[in-house]
Amino acid sequence: MSRVAVIGAGAVGCYYGARLAEAGHEVHFLMRRDYEAVQARGLSIVSKDGDLYIAHPHIARDASAIGPVDWVICALKATAIEEARALVAPCVGASTRILVLMNGLGLEDRFAVWFGAERIFGGLAFTCINRGEPGVVHHIDYGPVTVGHLKDDPAELDTALALWSGAKVETARAESLLAGRWTKLCWNIPFNGLAVTAGGITTDRILADPSLRAAVSALILEVAAAGNADLDAHGSPARLDGAAVARSMVAATEAMAAYRPSTMIDFVEGQPMEVEAIFEEPLRRASAHRVATPLLSLVTGQMRSLNARAR
Amino acid sequence: MSRVAVIGAGAVGCYYGARLAEAGHEVHFLMRRDYEAVQARGLSIVSKDGDLYIAHPHIARDASAIGPVDWVICALKATAIEEARALVAPCVGASTRILVLMNGLGLEDRFAVWFGAERIFGGLAFTCINRGEPGVVHHIDYGPVTVGHLKDDPAELDTALALWSGAKVETARAESLLAGRWTKLCWNIPFNGLAVTAGGITTDRILADPSLRAAVSALILEVAAAGNADLDAHGSPARLDGAAVARSMVAATEAMAAYRPSTMIDFVEGQPMEVEAIFEEPLRRASAHRVATPLLSLVTGQMRSLNARAR
Repeated sequence: MSRVAVIGAGAVGCYYGARLAEAGHEVHFLMRRDYEAVQARGLSIVSKDGDLYIAHPHIARDASAIGPVDWVICALKATAIEEARALVAPCVGASTRILVLMNGLGLEDRFAVWFGAERIFGGLAFTCINRGEPGVVHHIDYGPVTVGHLKDDPAELDTALALWSGAKVETARAESLLAGRWTKLCWNIPFNGLAVTAGGITTDRILADPSLRAAVSALILEVAAAGNADLDAHGSPARLDGAAVARSMVAATEAMAAYRPSTMIDFVEGQPMEVEAIFEEPLRRASAHRVATPLLSLVTGQMRSLNARAR
Repeated sequence: MSRVAVIGAGAVGCYYGARLAEAGHEVHFLMRRDYEAVQARGLSIVSKDGDLYIAHPHIARDASAIGPVDWVICALKATAIEEARALVAPCVGASTRILVLMNGLGLEDRFAVWFGAERIFGGLAFTCINRGEPGVVHHIDYGPVTVGHLKDDPAELDTALALWSGAKVETARAESLLAGRWTKLCWNIPFNGLAVTAGGITTDRILADPSLRAAVSALILEVAAAGNADLDAHGSPARLDGAAVARSMVAATEAMAAYRPSTMIDFVEGQPMEVEAIFEEPLRRASAHRVATPLLSLVTGQMRSLNARAR
């Protein structure tokens, strides 16, 4: 059993941390907003995979009270990346591994600079999880986590997947973390972007509009092309098949109920959106690799402007 | 001197009608919202080209009280096109001409079906005019009107321009009305579209953002290509030089003060937007002519969705 610190105990952090605790791991949650509620009433997960209640989870207001662990799961919002180093550092010892369970591109590189690349992993959660009242998390749909290692070391990847082997979480291997990140962007960029820029709409309404539906596929082709150029520049042999990704993501999203992407929730609530990690960094890389991405550029400009108004 | 009926006495209708009245024409204004205010206090124009006050303009609540005129100036919002026929008809006699002073594509064709093509003209106002309190109109910048005849008859065009010759309004000839309409769309589509979809921002902020600025030019190239295919399909020899239009429109807009496009004002006020005439009809024609317009399609989908929420 491992000692685990969940840094950023929002909906995603609480959900996956609770699943690890359920499997017997010693899981510590760094909490802000929900600290008092969880101390008083415990942590409740309402899940389509089975509800879960932890009466007395290990919770801390300060990461130094947790100290070094085997695994840090960093589930901060990407907008908080500048705070991540200070929040994570007290939990990092000589043999600590870090799973970056966040949205967007380039975040693991930041952690690698701070803590060394060998210990850095990326987690890509394909799931629909929302916060409820303090201390309550609603897990509505999906749930698999794709895990990759920043250096794509297969043995390290085995170690990472072993953590989850007894937990009620479906996992998948990303032999190339970078390809996994770009693949996830193929969903996040069109669906988070259009859900916001079309006025705060759910995924079903994007797909019901012929122009927006066409834009989803066109954006995915641009993102996949940028991703392939980025993989090439990183010396990775992995490649995305843009047309196939577009088909499968449209089909998977169509099979979902009306879904509010996290960025859309931030938008309608007037919160800062994850524009930097989901839009700006991919656009910068596309531009650096001279891949034409006019639709991504347009949506990024819109998101940037909307985000400036949200703050 | 001519007898003129202004149908749709919003800011644009009041302004140009008042300039014709100032030049000595007998101008009747069909008024709704402002009827009582204008009856009580007259019509005030606050203009960068000189203020103007008409103490007792001819105003009517019903077009049948105006009756047949030499010129109908229809300045309704394009969203009211379905009401236009009934509002205009009482003012149309055997020799009446109609100037469609509205935004968007295809509106003159509707009037042609209702009243005959020979008498239909289009007016393209390049101006910044806003309503103030009831009975007051603010003319802030620019002001020229480009006039074209639906059949591109030069003699008819002379007659139309003669109406304005004594008025304090700069006019220009559109030898091809259709080319004029597409040229105006080259401004309205990017600037109205991005001002709305980027969150209700002014034109200066569009141009200050590198991604949105690039999108302006890219949209203009798409619109010009669609326009050229449409001109070709209509047997017109006129053509737009997309790159030149993009350069001149960006430069002209940069020279303006921060400007709120009419559609953006509608958006922030929760009013129906002119999506059909400015976006849907151009997109339909581009599609019919098999011109690829991915950016126009995306923005149209966003506008359509935002408009559905505004109503």
